[in-house]
Amino acid sequence: MSSAPEFFFEDFPVGQVLDYGSYHVTAEEIVSFAREFDPQPFHIDEKAAKASMLGGLCASGWHVCAIVMRMMVDGYFGRTASMGSTGIDEMKWLKPVFAGDRLSCRRTTLAARVSAKRAEMGILKMQWELFDANSQKKAEMTGIKLIKVRGGA
Amino acid sequence: MSSAPEFFFEDFPVGQVLDYGSYHVTAEEIVSFAREFDPQPFHIDEKAAKASMLGGLCASGWHVCAIVMRMMVDGYFGRTASMGSTGIDEMKWLKPVFAGDRLSCRRTTLAARVSAKRAEMGILKMQWELFDANSQKKAEMTGIKLIKVRGGA
Repeated sequence: MSSAPEFFFEDFPVGQVLDYGSYHVTAEEIVSFAREFDPQPFHIDEKAAKASMLGGLCASGWHVCAIVMRMMVDGYFGRTASMGSTGIDEMKWLKPVFAGDRLSCRRTTLAARVSAKRAEMGILKMQWELFDANSQKKAEMTGIKLIKVRGGA
Repeated sequence: MSSAPEFFFEDFPVGQVLDYGSYHVTAEEIVSFAREFDPQPFHIDEKAAKASMLGGLCASGWHVCAIVMRMMVDGYFGRTASMGSTGIDEMKWLKPVFAGDRLSCRRTTLAARVSAKRAEMGILKMQWELFDANSQKKAEMTGIKLIKVRGGA
């Protein structure tokens, strides 16, 4: 994290679209995350995963979310004057994320306003879409980000 | 995971409420998760966290989700005939989850039906609420779980 943020509320205008990131998913990290948080057979056991309806070892949905967050931080959010988030409106796991997948993200600003109560805080409704190398959409989420207004206290 | 599941679709009737879990959050795991996936100052640096609007070192929202998943697996889901999930309808991070918090969960079945296309698959709309030891609600989410019908193929 930089101590002098580069991006503020004004840098995320409504309708803006940004493509970013290139994340290689490994079997090791799928199993490691799942052992800690989501030890279902299709996340920790290659053989069981092949026999399941998912067809192969795939990342926990929460691991997918964490990867989206990591890509966001690396892509722009680590240089953004973040004030956190209140939540997610919708999270869709559309296709399994498999070991070996190469992922990229697309971010779109859906709505933007300055808080009525706190003039230094911008409230952004954002959409993130996660794609594999064949442009197949793997996941989609919309949520709220709180970001400082430029020059705000 | 047991190879002979104990809980099926029929075991989650609409309106059923279950309280479960006792999870102790440590500063070490907050920092460890955040370093990997969400390295914002209030998740990795105690001093920066105290100076932030959050008031102390607190878990990444995605770490909170992962903890909810882990408590779910330990509480009942590890013994459930799971077929996965299509997504989350809503996720609210209501209060920061701090190092030292002792968490418990409440699960409520909001809706339940058998898939029209796949008679062996039940589709459940569930709500999960996360509380600290003072019954303060920290997070709330609703989402879809796919669970096998008892005796289904």
